[in-house]
Amino acid sequence: MSTEATGAADSPIRVALDAMGGDYAPAETVKGAVIAARTQPVRVLLVGDRDSVEAELEKQDTTGLAIDVIPSKGKIEEDEHPVQALRRKPESSLVVATRLLKQGNADALVSMGSTGATMAGASLILGTLGGLERPCLGGPFLGLAPRTVVVDMGSNVDCRPSLLLGFAAMGCVFAHRFLGVENPRVGLLSTGAEESKGNRQVLEASELFKGSELNFVGHVEGMDFFTGKADVIVCDGFVGNVLMKFTEGLGATMAGYLRKSLEGKLPANELEEFASRVWEVNSLPKKMGGPLFGVNGAVVIGHGASKGDGVAGAIDTARRCVELDLVEGMRAELAALLSETISRG
Amino acid sequence: MSTEATGAADSPIRVALDAMGGDYAPAETVKGAVIAARTQPVRVLLVGDRDSVEAELEKQDTTGLAIDVIPSKGKIEEDEHPVQALRRKPESSLVVATRLLKQGNADALVSMGSTGATMAGASLILGTLGGLERPCLGGPFLGLAPRTVVVDMGSNVDCRPSLLLGFAAMGCVFAHRFLGVENPRVGLLSTGAEESKGNRQVLEASELFKGSELNFVGHVEGMDFFTGKADVIVCDGFVGNVLMKFTEGLGATMAGYLRKSLEGKLPANELEEFASRVWEVNSLPKKMGGPLFGVNGAVVIGHGASKGDGVAGAIDTARRCVELDLVEGMRAELAALLSETISRG
Repeated sequence: MSTEATGAADSPIRVALDAMGGDYAPAETVKGAVIAARTQPVRVLLVGDRDSVEAELEKQDTTGLAIDVIPSKGKIEEDEHPVQALRRKPESSLVVATRLLKQGNADALVSMGSTGATMAGASLILGTLGGLERPCLGGPFLGLAPRTVVVDMGSNVDCRPSLLLGFAAMGCVFAHRFLGVENPRVGLLSTGAEESKGNRQVLEASELFKGSELNFVGHVEGMDFFTGKADVIVCDGFVGNVLMKFTEGLGATMAGYLRKSLEGKLPANELEEFASRVWEVNSLPKKMGGPLFGVNGAVVIGHGASKGDGVAGAIDTARRCVELDLVEGMRAELAALLSETISRG
Repeated sequence: MSTEATGAADSPIRVALDAMGGDYAPAETVKGAVIAARTQPVRVLLVGDRDSVEAELEKQDTTGLAIDVIPSKGKIEEDEHPVQALRRKPESSLVVATRLLKQGNADALVSMGSTGATMAGASLILGTLGGLERPCLGGPFLGLAPRTVVVDMGSNVDCRPSLLLGFAAMGCVFAHRFLGVENPRVGLLSTGAEESKGNRQVLEASELFKGSELNFVGHVEGMDFFTGKADVIVCDGFVGNVLMKFTEGLGATMAGYLRKSLEGKLPANELEEFASRVWEVNSLPKKMGGPLFGVNGAVVIGHGASKGDGVAGAIDTARRCVELDLVEGMRAELAALLSETISRG
């Protein structure tokens, strides 16, 4: 384990990891940090209770790995009110890790802990990008549709049309920089392809989208997560949350259905592996983590149930966000939207 | 083919079928009518252009079957504005079939045609049940979750909380009478099980549900379509529509995924049969049709792509709705809700 100072121009990207966040922390977060430091050009700043983090580190071979331990006190629990918890626990792993990013002592933040607290902490400590009321979670949400970017995946349950427009713009930056899609096509999730179909929120947003510089292809429907009709699908966080959890439930049920239907027709181990794979393609790409769109810094929220490889995957996503300068891209895109609106207004 | 008068007390249930509605009408609607008349205790009233319906009937063996042809003129197309089309085409198959029900010359109506036009026609001609602003579509929506009743499955994209309460009450009557569930548990679809989570619509509806006589179990999440936490899941038609179409897209994609993953591991015909079954369990129970909740009459809307067996299935659902006296049950339940509200108010 190295303890040299970090931050020189040619040093690897520094990722602050909330070592206490997640269902299997700190054992699996520490494992993930070790995997990441071994396989990726990153330095991992493990933020957590020193004793328990170091105890976990001792179980690993960390010779020559770029891992630092940054001590913190306590953690924010899943069931705490995000903003109140942030205030009550200013030395918790999440708050200390977020401050590292704010102060320029880290380049990115990764947490497997409470999504609400991570988002609230990032908004309060890092601030949101200009003109944006609230950040959102975005990215591909389904293994079976790995190139369809969905915003908002569940953070904002009531969205005004202008907020949806901001989310769409950030989704496009992500699709372009992260997935390499040129001029991403944006679709608004609705109940029919026809312009006249949809609820009030969608119909209002539609007008706003049509008047913007986005490559807006109109309304898309539930099946279009799979048809490739749009690269970025925009919905409010209520619908995004329901869909995300629906597919998780469906994937588990489908895996069970396959186990039963194919019993005796495939070798048992092959069947088990196949059922797990089916469960996986029906879920969030677990090893990726979800980038937070719209805050002043690279923040990735990983799945709470991540094991070591999932943690390492989220660290890799954070590293890529920094390398691709996603935050600056989103800042520029939002500024352009804002100036459009002002010049039109 | 029989042409005797119908309607005697001991005669079979008379189902008016919109023979011109659906993607494969009238060939498959006529086939479905023949299957139904042969296998179920029903008399089918085939409403459609006499020449084309009779031409299809001649291809079948209808000896001794209780099938009548009721002539009509023209049909309402999928892309027509429902209410305008109903006014412009008063002799169309849908309107004539709906009037048969209204006038007591049929006991139920089945259509595979435009959902919007069937709903509008039923609302205008039959009327909605007391106190209800609009009807909705409900029932199990997924082969993988055959005992979870969902209301609204896509008809009302903007719902006030009171409308959701009415839908819930009707969903309970359906779950009780049709699926045999005692005292059905009602869940409101939201973004978390906690009372504080959800959008404005859900939070307001939640208060209303808590104050009602429904067996309300609180908020449920996307995975709870599969967990059995509630027998009736209530959402607005926007979310219902998105989910329904999402699963159809997912089912098709999953079937393709299985074909590819299991190629060479199962015999080709077995694999194909299996992939089709997977597609099916991810879709609306196609052979059932969706009962329309909240109109003054038994109306079942079948899938537009139904073949003969799907049409026969929808006719069977309509017959069961009549036998179970679903409409009277819903009327009573809505009246009770209304009197509750008045007595509390």
